Amino acid sequence: MPHIELPAGLPGIRGPMAFSPETARPLNDLVNVLLRSNARLPESGLTEGERELIATYVSSLNDCFFCQTIHGAIASHHLGDDNWELVNSVKRDYQEAAISPKVKTLLTIAGSVQQGGKSVTPAQVEAARAEGATDHDIHDTVLIAAAFCMFNRYVDGLATWAPEDASLYRYRAQKVAEYGYTHEDHYMPK
Amino acid sequence: MPHIELPAGLPGIRGPMAFSPETARPLNDLVNVLLRSNARLPESGLTEGERELIATYVSSLNDCFFCQTIHGAIASHHLGDDNWELVNSVKRDYQEAAISPKVKTLLTIAGSVQQGGKSVTPAQVEAARAEGATDHDIHDTVLIAAAFCMFNRYVDGLATWAPEDASLYRYRAQKVAEYGYTHEDHYMPK
Repeated sequence: MPHIELPAGLPGIRGPMAFSPETARPLNDLVNVLLRSNARLPESGLTEGERELIATYVSSLNDCFFCQTIHGAIASHHLGDDNWELVNSVKRDYQEAAISPKVKTLLTIAGSVQQGGKSVTPAQVEAARAEGATDHDIHDTVLIAAAFCMFNRYVDGLATWAPEDASLYRYRAQKVAEYGYTHEDHYMPK
Repeated sequence: MPHIELPAGLPGIRGPMAFSPETARPLNDLVNVLLRSNARLPESGLTEGERELIATYVSSLNDCFFCQTIHGAIASHHLGDDNWELVNSVKRDYQEAAISPKVKTLLTIAGSVQQGGKSVTPAQVEAARAEGATDHDIHDTVLIAAAFCMFNRYVDGLATWAPEDASLYRYRAQKVAEYGYTHEDHYMPK
């Protein structure tokens, strides 16, 4: 049961966002800029699938079921990963996953950010650069990882409810890919 | 030295914000809604000083020098705590600090959020309610604590530079109190 009285029937972050629309607005604006690479062009060297993978990985480290499932579904949608095998392999052991060496180095940085900002080392950043990561890629990786340390805590710190039915996450993933994060009506079926 | 090339001479979060203005906008919007209680009326039962105290406390738990110093300075400004004694006592041991029992229970919740969302317990929430905390107070406490787990990681995950001169933070605190977080020109003297 959630720690506060949230609008009924809204899963995960949707409850707190409906409870507090004034804060939902900048939170949606943030993920919309950060996770949708068309909003980051021309600087962005990370695809939407890669951004969502970083969000999913950090959410799995933080053990946030709702966030890792919804962002995993969105990553899978972008990456053509229909049965979620790739996303699951990233969560299990990204070093062995079928992703680029560059994304592996960025996931290492994201994992450090999850532990705490000071855990990021110059050697980790150098390794990412050696695989072609730009300053913008590194910046966005750090901020995506940091932002999901917020979202995960917002979702679980209020003890929100999350559905287990995978089809609901698949449905939402398609809507996010189509409309972005600011169209709340499409967030997830009630 | 910062992990990426940031605009020179801008301390703390100002460097990354100048580097990435598209993400700076929603980040500033978020703190402006969350920390300035006039933006939260009529629901808000927390003053600006209390909100800044929560931000300061979480930033100290995350060992983020820039964030705990600037938000500590802003809290002190709002609370008439000229020599920062009150803020320092909250960071040292908030149970012994000269703050209300309600704020103490909210700092306990904030400390749990810093560890991870699932660390917040129903008993902690009940204790806050018993001291008069509303659903809005609890919501805002959780989101402020979560948001600073993001800001702290953004600032330290990029290894930004922070000045040590307290007068710079006092100057900035006054400007934030006056103009809010969205007036970047007033953020801090260069």
